[in-house]
Amino acid sequence: METLTIIKVGGNVIDNERELSTFLHLFSALKTPKLLVHGGGKIATELSKKLGIHPVLVEGRRMTDAETLKVVTMVYAGLINKSIVAQLQALHTNAIGICGADGNCIPATKRENKGIDYGFAGDIEYNKINALFLQQLLNNQYTPVVAPITHDGKGQLLNTNADTIASSLAKALSKLYKIQLLYCFEKPGVLSNANDENSVIQKINKKLFEQLKQEGVISGGMIPKLDNAFDALNAGVESVLIGEAKQLLQTNTHAGTKITLS
Amino acid sequence: METLTIIKVGGNVIDNERELSTFLHLFSALKTPKLLVHGGGKIATELSKKLGIHPVLVEGRRMTDAETLKVVTMVYAGLINKSIVAQLQALHTNAIGICGADGNCIPATKRENKGIDYGFAGDIEYNKINALFLQQLLNNQYTPVVAPITHDGKGQLLNTNADTIASSLAKALSKLYKIQLLYCFEKPGVLSNANDENSVIQKINKKLFEQLKQEGVISGGMIPKLDNAFDALNAGVESVLIGEAKQLLQTNTHAGTKITLS
Repeated sequence: METLTIIKVGGNVIDNERELSTFLHLFSALKTPKLLVHGGGKIATELSKKLGIHPVLVEGRRMTDAETLKVVTMVYAGLINKSIVAQLQALHTNAIGICGADGNCIPATKRENKGIDYGFAGDIEYNKINALFLQQLLNNQYTPVVAPITHDGKGQLLNTNADTIASSLAKALSKLYKIQLLYCFEKPGVLSNANDENSVIQKINKKLFEQLKQEGVISGGMIPKLDNAFDALNAGVESVLIGEAKQLLQTNTHAGTKITLS
Repeated sequence: METLTIIKVGGNVIDNERELSTFLHLFSALKTPKLLVHGGGKIATELSKKLGIHPVLVEGRRMTDAETLKVVTMVYAGLINKSIVAQLQALHTNAIGICGADGNCIPATKRENKGIDYGFAGDIEYNKINALFLQQLLNNQYTPVVAPITHDGKGQLLNTNADTIASSLAKALSKLYKIQLLYCFEKPGVLSNANDENSVIQKINKKLFEQLKQEGVISGGMIPKLDNAFDALNAGVESVLIGEAKQLLQTNTHAGTKITLS
């Protein structure tokens, strides 16, 4: 099977013009077929503020009401997505920017209100992803750039976590490609000491993950990130790396934290 | 050659939820391969106002400064484009929403400042359009939905008139398809009496066009629309109809104004 590199890049890179440009140069230089999933960053929050839409937080997550959905659709699927595509075109990477509604590639379900209303938030079942559509684009030498917006198949767009989109696409495409999944975030990897950037844990398997959770070394937002990673490996994804965008793309296997099953 | 129907739908339909839904039902029911080009409507103007961006008009056209470009990219390529795609998916039309940067399908040039600065406005050379990309999508049964944003190939997005995008795509694709180009606007066709909706001129050829211009029957914004139409026919487009969306799609050949060379 051919290798496909799926990269999720987060707000810390998107928000900084120079960081984004450096990242896109490195991404563009990757020789394998590749797919980019991007998050949102601060632009949506800033636009919401300017429009007088006050974010409603539910257990630390932003509730996607109808007005917020409009804002994230504009910012993620419009401004950020098309800016990245135009920049990649300038680097001779023939990118095509899509969201989950395009080509019906990521069908989702509006999250049920079980006492907590997340609004227009979409949950993905990865076995419903239209992998054929993405394969057709890749076969024709296009590089998909995916915005974190999905749809319910009944005409409703939905806001969906970009990390989850990346791991769901990785799982769905692992039947067709040998998938390298790279989660880029603001730190050089999973740290054994949150205050020491030199304390990157080079490799974490399931057993070590359980141990590090018990010891409190891994906590908070890193837990779902790693759960996602193990999920992807269990579903057939070849490798998962977590770390800082520049380091992962420049040196690939020697940087970041490698997540392995055993 | 296979028939491809290219439809340009304007702000009057986009701005009205019910009109848009009716239009998309009719569009979805079209049996031939099809491609939709959409305009902007009032949403961009309203968002600009809310953000305190005051439109600068240059000879009646909005000047696209950097902030306005962000707004139209968000609204056209984000909100409107993805809402249309999600609604078409619900109607079982497998749509894919793109702008001219995606797949490098509509390369453009920033309009030169010859004393008048139009800002980030893009002019298209139709022979540079990536018709192969659109053909690949159509061959795979996808329906392209095109937002009126192009790019210069150097990383810059550009704002481009949707009428021009429609006729440019029609011209570029006329080498591969028998093109039916439908320009939908707020009137039932070209009227011989601007105040009488029953005065639709059924057929206009080049000679009648010159005569009607001299008589002042055709004036203002209708002139570039018809220039565009004759341009398209000269370049090999099979047929051009101008009229009201619902009428053109419901009855096709018996409604609107048919533009012919002779």
